[in-house]
Amino acid sequence: MKVLIIGGGGLVGQKLGKALAARGELRGAHITELVLADVLDAAPIDAPFTVTTKQCDISDPASVETIIDAETDVIFLLAAVVSAHAEEDFDFGYKINVDGTRNVLERCRHLGTQPVLVFTSSIAVFGGEVPQPFGDYSLPNPQISYGAQKAIGELLLNDYTRKGFVRGRGFRLPTISVRPGKPNRAASGFMSSIFREPLQGLPANCPVDKDFPHYYLSPRKCVENLIKGAELEQEALGKCPSMTMPGRVWTIGQMLDAMRAVAGPEPEKLITWEPQPEIAGILDGWRMNIQVEKAETLGLEPDASFEDNIRYFLEDDIG
Amino acid sequence: MKVLIIGGGGLVGQKLGKALAARGELRGAHITELVLADVLDAAPIDAPFTVTTKQCDISDPASVETIIDAETDVIFLLAAVVSAHAEEDFDFGYKINVDGTRNVLERCRHLGTQPVLVFTSSIAVFGGEVPQPFGDYSLPNPQISYGAQKAIGELLLNDYTRKGFVRGRGFRLPTISVRPGKPNRAASGFMSSIFREPLQGLPANCPVDKDFPHYYLSPRKCVENLIKGAELEQEALGKCPSMTMPGRVWTIGQMLDAMRAVAGPEPEKLITWEPQPEIAGILDGWRMNIQVEKAETLGLEPDASFEDNIRYFLEDDIG
Repeated sequence: MKVLIIGGGGLVGQKLGKALAARGELRGAHITELVLADVLDAAPIDAPFTVTTKQCDISDPASVETIIDAETDVIFLLAAVVSAHAEEDFDFGYKINVDGTRNVLERCRHLGTQPVLVFTSSIAVFGGEVPQPFGDYSLPNPQISYGAQKAIGELLLNDYTRKGFVRGRGFRLPTISVRPGKPNRAASGFMSSIFREPLQGLPANCPVDKDFPHYYLSPRKCVENLIKGAELEQEALGKCPSMTMPGRVWTIGQMLDAMRAVAGPEPEKLITWEPQPEIAGILDGWRMNIQVEKAETLGLEPDASFEDNIRYFLEDDIG
Repeated sequence: MKVLIIGGGGLVGQKLGKALAARGELRGAHITELVLADVLDAAPIDAPFTVTTKQCDISDPASVETIIDAETDVIFLLAAVVSAHAEEDFDFGYKINVDGTRNVLERCRHLGTQPVLVFTSSIAVFGGEVPQPFGDYSLPNPQISYGAQKAIGELLLNDYTRKGFVRGRGFRLPTISVRPGKPNRAASGFMSSIFREPLQGLPANCPVDKDFPHYYLSPRKCVENLIKGAELEQEALGKCPSMTMPGRVWTIGQMLDAMRAVAGPEPEKLITWEPQPEIAGILDGWRMNIQVEKAETLGLEPDASFEDNIRYFLEDDIG
């Protein structure tokens, strides 16, 4: 069992690699090699199997050929140009998120080996006048280019899967919180930083009101769900192998209550409440009430409470 | 006012060109030039303004440059590789329906002139386990590559419109019936031929049962709706400028009743009822009960009855 993580240097890619190292197996077979591909060298991971790091630019088909071969059994495609970045650099977003995804699918098609392909989409596919809550059968109507690119990726994945070129399954990730490390270029950055920074005694800004509702998942549950997603049998996915990954809708106020319950009243005092005009337009379309059933029926799980998200961060990332 | 029809040699393109010639104006301005672009030379049209025919391969950006210039005010993008053809030739479908659409959008973006772009999608975007009736907010879940490619085209159109690169509006065409002329490579071909051929004393085959429900529009109403679509103000389209064009759900049995009412009992006797295995897989996902409101609210119209469809065919095409 040879596993490839494209975007293996990122937050989710690294945590996924470590989880695979701890398991040692996937889809009932021992993992013999893990390839961590990323645009820059990914950090290596200690594992009971061979771990290789490879540089790859997925917008270049020749580069994609160097990371996917006939022995590649399972691919996690996590690499993406995220929201604010794709909004700012229109060409680069399409190049990585659309052309890159298509290059990966085309490589698999031409190999003819039908690898399992786990694609990460995003709840950024939802937006506009579509009635909320957004469910499994709601129209994806993205209001940012990142969402459009991910919705296109889903359609490609579904079509290549239907044609038998890959054993695809796509999961629209909730906003991941609490993200460790430094902010990336996502407009949703504050949804982690208002916990991450204060829990470490640092200030952070929240640009929205306490009643702002959004859809969240912890990094730990996200990785568990990606692994479960990889293990699903194709028939179980039906005629739409892309779906929303389970998360929970919380308001900022509910999340702050959870932080207080776990870590006391002090961290919250480090939060400032300044609107940020440069991301206001993006966030406007992001008051997301999402309710999904399909992925839960397939065994994927949300967090039990946002207190869990806070605890996972303390245990996994600054423990 | 310079108007471009891409796919100007096809059935809808030709009827649209003739309708524009009869009107002489669009969006409140006199038409000064009509360009009919197609992969082969389009038939010229008599008009009170200049009509130019141009060969164009939309999968080639340099070819697209030759048909869209800074004076092009309104573009109708009708060219497509249709259902059974795109299903058979995977690469060609993506090349024309996805890359071609993107080339047209990119050309408009780089010109910076924000032309009105009327894109034709298809009800083939619907399918799978999504509950029927399919409405304005239903998940497009195509079960053929043609549908996937059209759904991708909608997402591109919507995103380029949101960014202000074009004044886009997309319309998912119902199955057009009664189509004149020869069958094209669409799996839906029989939905016209079982009327067109018998009304002219020729035999035709119907591969589905009389209770097969589907969503239809006459060519005449389709052209009227495309012109209305071109004339809509951008603000009226809201945050999802792609939508289903109004049609009506009829069963084969209801349509035969209409033919009998208009043309008597004889034509129906020329129909044979043999299943066709080569298109059964496609048609399986096509029992389409579609109900839409948005386009009707914007003033687009379905046929009043299928008897009208039969009459329009007799008047417009063999009159």
